[in-house]
Amino acid sequence: MKDHKRQPTAVRAPAIVKEAVRLFTLNGYDATSVDAIASGVGITKASVYHHFSGKEEILSAAMDLILDPLEQLLADTRLEEMPAIGQLRAIVVSVIELTALHRGEVLLLSMIKSNTQTERSAQERRRKLQATVSKIITRAIEEGSISPFFDPVVLGRLIFGMTNSVMYWWDLNRPSNTVDTQTLLDQILGFISSGVSYSAPAESETAWSIPHTESSRPVDKALRDINE
Amino acid sequence: MKDHKRQPTAVRAPAIVKEAVRLFTLNGYDATSVDAIASGVGITKASVYHHFSGKEEILSAAMDLILDPLEQLLADTRLEEMPAIGQLRAIVVSVIELTALHRGEVLLLSMIKSNTQTERSAQERRRKLQATVSKIITRAIEEGSISPFFDPVVLGRLIFGMTNSVMYWWDLNRPSNTVDTQTLLDQILGFISSGVSYSAPAESETAWSIPHTESSRPVDKALRDINE
Repeated sequence: MKDHKRQPTAVRAPAIVKEAVRLFTLNGYDATSVDAIASGVGITKASVYHHFSGKEEILSAAMDLILDPLEQLLADTRLEEMPAIGQLRAIVVSVIELTALHRGEVLLLSMIKSNTQTERSAQERRRKLQATVSKIITRAIEEGSISPFFDPVVLGRLIFGMTNSVMYWWDLNRPSNTVDTQTLLDQILGFISSGVSYSAPAESETAWSIPHTESSRPVDKALRDINE
Repeated sequence: MKDHKRQPTAVRAPAIVKEAVRLFTLNGYDATSVDAIASGVGITKASVYHHFSGKEEILSAAMDLILDPLEQLLADTRLEEMPAIGQLRAIVVSVIELTALHRGEVLLLSMIKSNTQTERSAQERRRKLQATVSKIITRAIEEGSISPFFDPVVLGRLIFGMTNSVMYWWDLNRPSNTVDTQTLLDQILGFISSGVSYSAPAESETAWSIPHTESSRPVDKALRDINE
């Protein structure tokens, strides 16, 4: 008991979420008990309940970590004033940076079922984000920055199917097997922009290719990009 | 017993594989028993063992359905004589068509652990295919058909991360929620070729854009394309 009394309360809630996400993705949400989460963090079950009403609230906190920044980004009026292609780019940047910071949570979102209200709520928020992306792509086609060749829904699913696939292989904890965030982002933005034939640094002055810098908060970073 | 004696033996083995794949992807490979598979098909456990030595051999047959055609495609000398960009295109076409035919098996390959020799073997075959794709992309860069901007390993993972993502949302059994194989293929090939800015039917004479027609056997179809 002494040991975790030394640990500040503010640190413990994120540690609980982190361990819960690890167990949820490893064994499934249904198969993971609050006991197992407490034991994994090295605290008592009562300490978990000091922070969360139960498993569902922990899942909810985990989903907020990745869904809140994306929703805030899409609700930001500065984003709305941009050309649609720049909005799409800001979302791709945000998704990749969120995956770098919260790989487990992104993986969990793709895995959850719809048995509880919290699970259904996370899936519903995800669907709304997808619908917003489809609308942005539709607008980009109208604005002439994306070819009318594309079906907006299919293209949205392909782009975010690609960015989501990163969570399966891109493990920043295993540097030998990976690339850094900036390189990955460049490769993805280059690919989305011009496909495999991408070869034109001269094109980098378009809205799509706004330069970006390092940041630990994806939503801030995406918005900073927009204002550059 | 009478009922399934009427069913020809040749039909029963694929039916067993199909039901096994459904249960493996729904409940996990480890949690699925031969009893459950037999019961799902509506035959006795003994009838399952008439075709397969056990669960592992059923899994192996399921993996062969998607890995055999891809390996045959890559081993075909007609493919080897093509420019690398055409080889890459043939593989993309094959992956999408295999996903259309064997969505469950593709999903299963992405889900299996490495507890048994059969699981490890399937993962190893998948890794070899990925390595071959990286080599083909490296060659395409050398041949000037893919920009040297790209890291061959990262680009390979992005392209096949995108094509694999299709298995999560593209359900041909729910036509309202989907696009047909040919349309999806066109959208994907257009996107890989030129990114979102794709708009040039005039470019369709390149090796990348060899025209393709419908077929139920992906490997045949890809090779037919090559010879056109």
